[in-house]
Amino acid sequence: MQEMLKRFWAGEQRALARLISVVENEMPEKDELLRQLYPRTGNAYILGVTGSPGAGKSSLVDRLTSVIREKGETVGIVAIDPTSPFSGGALLGDRIRMQEHTLDKGVFIRSMGTRGSLGGLAKTTKEVVKVVDAFGMDWVIIETVGVGQAEMDVMYIADTTVVVLTPGAGDSIQTIKAGIMEIADVFAVNKCDLPGADKVATEVEMMLDLQRDQVKWRPPVVKTSSVSREGVADLLADVEKHRDYLQDNGVFAERRQQRLRNEALEIVNYQWQRLVRRQMSYGKVNELLNSVAARETDPYSAAASIMEWIIEQSGLKKNDQVSLSQ
Amino acid sequence: MQEMLKRFWAGEQRALARLISVVENEMPEKDELLRQLYPRTGNAYILGVTGSPGAGKSSLVDRLTSVIREKGETVGIVAIDPTSPFSGGALLGDRIRMQEHTLDKGVFIRSMGTRGSLGGLAKTTKEVVKVVDAFGMDWVIIETVGVGQAEMDVMYIADTTVVVLTPGAGDSIQTIKAGIMEIADVFAVNKCDLPGADKVATEVEMMLDLQRDQVKWRPPVVKTSSVSREGVADLLADVEKHRDYLQDNGVFAERRQQRLRNEALEIVNYQWQRLVRRQMSYGKVNELLNSVAARETDPYSAAASIMEWIIEQSGLKKNDQVSLSQ
Repeated sequence: MQEMLKRFWAGEQRALARLISVVENEMPEKDELLRQLYPRTGNAYILGVTGSPGAGKSSLVDRLTSVIREKGETVGIVAIDPTSPFSGGALLGDRIRMQEHTLDKGVFIRSMGTRGSLGGLAKTTKEVVKVVDAFGMDWVIIETVGVGQAEMDVMYIADTTVVVLTPGAGDSIQTIKAGIMEIADVFAVNKCDLPGADKVATEVEMMLDLQRDQVKWRPPVVKTSSVSREGVADLLADVEKHRDYLQDNGVFAERRQQRLRNEALEIVNYQWQRLVRRQMSYGKVNELLNSVAARETDPYSAAASIMEWIIEQSGLKKNDQVSLSQ
Repeated sequence: MQEMLKRFWAGEQRALARLISVVENEMPEKDELLRQLYPRTGNAYILGVTGSPGAGKSSLVDRLTSVIREKGETVGIVAIDPTSPFSGGALLGDRIRMQEHTLDKGVFIRSMGTRGSLGGLAKTTKEVVKVVDAFGMDWVIIETVGVGQAEMDVMYIADTTVVVLTPGAGDSIQTIKAGIMEIADVFAVNKCDLPGADKVATEVEMMLDLQRDQVKWRPPVVKTSSVSREGVADLLADVEKHRDYLQDNGVFAERRQQRLRNEALEIVNYQWQRLVRRQMSYGKVNELLNSVAARETDPYSAAASIMEWIIEQSGLKKNDQVSLSQ
């Protein structure tokens, strides 16, 4: 892995792709890799882009990337593809996209399936974003379909979240209301050359009017078109305005700190689960679980015994280590 | 709580409603309550009903309940309402439903918001189902919109899952493919009096043909109408056929055992997290988290130290208890 890391630090995109796979597939080197990358993380600005299937997110991210590149900044894109557990393939995987950036060293694109992530979609995405961040990209854009809780959770990684709406049928405010509207820092009304775009924009503004007194940041609403590229520069300007707002109010620093705290706690939980998993198929823990399965012990009492046992076991191991090192 | 439990065992629906609230709101008595209910759980058959918003799930569950009642069996319905975290209210909450059952002691209906569940939707639903199960209902029907991962997870609680489709616009097989098709044990093509119902049924059958060799149970496809009540009795018959299939093949017993094992493990994790949460805002754990937030320690090393500390602390406590009891 050290060889691969060297190429990664040298800016080789193929090494970046390989190290992302290490994370995505939960390979044994993963923990050590993330630990080594850690000091170089925290510099990229994380932009989330979400919206219904067919809202034109991919094309919009594509155009946005061009505008960012014109300013000389680099972009890593992590695109989440909802995959079916049955077919295993990517459902919306139009991976022929983004052709104009393929020769650009300042752009990196990675698609991720939603089902493949062993440790949970949000956890895996967060780790992949970290790798892209450490690689030195100025921006990491996470692109996801805002349909599920898992996809929603992904958005909590972002510093700024753009919700993409369209005047298309069935994409009225009503249908996407549950959850997704609340996470928007900026609204993009995409495909604004289609009829009905003004109506959608007005609906959003009206909804925002209702919340006026409750929020400090009122999400701007930008009309965009991936075809004519209308509004794309404005969209970036609004994203940057939101970034400035977060930074000026200390919200940015505070959020980043809170995220680091949460991250440490998540690792604690993850390590604990690993400890449990390691013990669950043999010995006392397995015995207790079998007794629960046979309805001889209730799961609550069994859980208490399992907990005690695992703590005792790791406690003993820890003491051994202490005496060895003394 | 003992008074309430007495009324619960006596079959009072108001006591059932109150005890569900204890679970839903994570009240302090919750753990003890579930422990006391446990011996009487495991008898109800858990039926999941899911489908897009507007597929007519509520009415269909209503009709299905009537058919079950005609056979003299009792029904508890747990309806999951997607709620918006912003408005706090139920989005699809047409709670005037099911009027024909309001006077029937053999039917109990409970709506649950998706955001209110503190311990996660699937966990809370599982616990609520347990309370209804312990109350003595022969069937527990979980009704949910199949839009998110959280809602999907709920379906893994069910013994049999019915996926409700409609010939309505936008509800083609394509749009709901991701995830939801795979969890169906029975398909209901609802609103079968509308044009296009045959087409939907044919599409599903064709999709099932493709999977023919890979599955032992081929989900039947039933056309239903909540208006004319056509097909509702057939739907129940197919659900019962699936139940028989599970029981005859030993799958039912095996699944229930696996669920009990998982449940014990989930409680272990939950208790661990409680242990962590109790320590995180003071002393050594808080110090470590602060150092992570200030980027002085990386989250991986901090997590290892936190883990050691918590195990050590609970180990000490445990030893104290042991010496006290000796």
